[in-house]
Amino acid sequence: MKDLPSFELLVDSFAKLPGVGRKSAERMASAVLDMPQEDAEQFSKSLIDAKNRIHPCPNCGLFTEKDTCFYCADESRDHSLCIVVARPKDADAFEKIGVLNCVYHVLGGLLNPAKGIGPEDLAIDHLVERIQNEGIKEIVLAMNPTIEGETTSLFLAHALAAVAPEVKITRLGYGLPMGASLDYADALTLQKALEGRKSL
Amino acid sequence: MKDLPSFELLVDSFAKLPGVGRKSAERMASAVLDMPQEDAEQFSKSLIDAKNRIHPCPNCGLFTEKDTCFYCADESRDHSLCIVVARPKDADAFEKIGVLNCVYHVLGGLLNPAKGIGPEDLAIDHLVERIQNEGIKEIVLAMNPTIEGETTSLFLAHALAAVAPEVKITRLGYGLPMGASLDYADALTLQKALEGRKSL
Repeated sequence: MKDLPSFELLVDSFAKLPGVGRKSAERMASAVLDMPQEDAEQFSKSLIDAKNRIHPCPNCGLFTEKDTCFYCADESRDHSLCIVVARPKDADAFEKIGVLNCVYHVLGGLLNPAKGIGPEDLAIDHLVERIQNEGIKEIVLAMNPTIEGETTSLFLAHALAAVAPEVKITRLGYGLPMGASLDYADALTLQKALEGRKSL
Repeated sequence: MKDLPSFELLVDSFAKLPGVGRKSAERMASAVLDMPQEDAEQFSKSLIDAKNRIHPCPNCGLFTEKDTCFYCADESRDHSLCIVVARPKDADAFEKIGVLNCVYHVLGGLLNPAKGIGPEDLAIDHLVERIQNEGIKEIVLAMNPTIEGETTSLFLAHALAAVAPEVKITRLGYGLPMGASLDYADALTLQKALEGRKSL
């Protein structure tokens, strides 16, 4: 479609989304043109509403539309158990399985010296404050099993052990994913699975 | 993420786009929360701008922001050759290869008795008017090679032959796509390739 500047701008916006290439963005923008007017207006409004109403919880960093997030405000949760995640959406994975009725803490990223992200860029001091103020007894470090995730986990484990030695600090177990085939497991995963072997 | 109604509304909007499931829509909505404020505002604005500014060309049905579309307004094009397509975006495929410097006509759909779409729902009368007023000499029917596309092509070929016998009416060639393997060609495609065989 030529000579359609407002279409191009819309394609540009869609193409900024993760996993959306130019071609997909064009299909999405075309779909907007085919949409009923009220759907497009609702879409436009919901974008700006979500952006304006949703903000990080001042306590844990998860997203909320209120003063405190759903999890921090829930008295029935176990506030002594805290899962530490890099990004707000990582908490969703744990909520979906619903095994632990715990609270969360969002670091806001992972240590990455190459990108200049140091400990002062993450919400670590605030985590220490929470340990002291909220009576947290166990912290589960739930970073992705990458170099940055591992580095951040180790750094946090040492830093927290120094200021709060009474708190139990664990990380997620590594090993074969359920349903996987040994044939296709990479060397590092297999090594972690061996290190993490359990007696039966 | 719980208790975030404005997030859910945004996910609903994304999930209405083609090829976007619930999970992708959640990723896209999360990306909006991570976006700079001005990007989200631009996205919201571009949605409503595209919707309000873009409309079908009154002559051919392709999208435009002006009174007449880029193609109809271009005097250097061959207005005697017209490619008939079902949807505006189908014209893009021909523009991308840039072989024909022609004009277009959008039917607005395909005949589909099961869905109650009859000839009166398509821009056929208008095509007849254009043939008479614009001196169209050749019409290329470029519908998808599906049952609805074939039905529409045959119907149009008969209808146009009756009112404008002097106009040459063709359809796209069917056969093996370039680079394809005979092993993987389906029976119908192979049959069409045989029917469309050319002497060398």
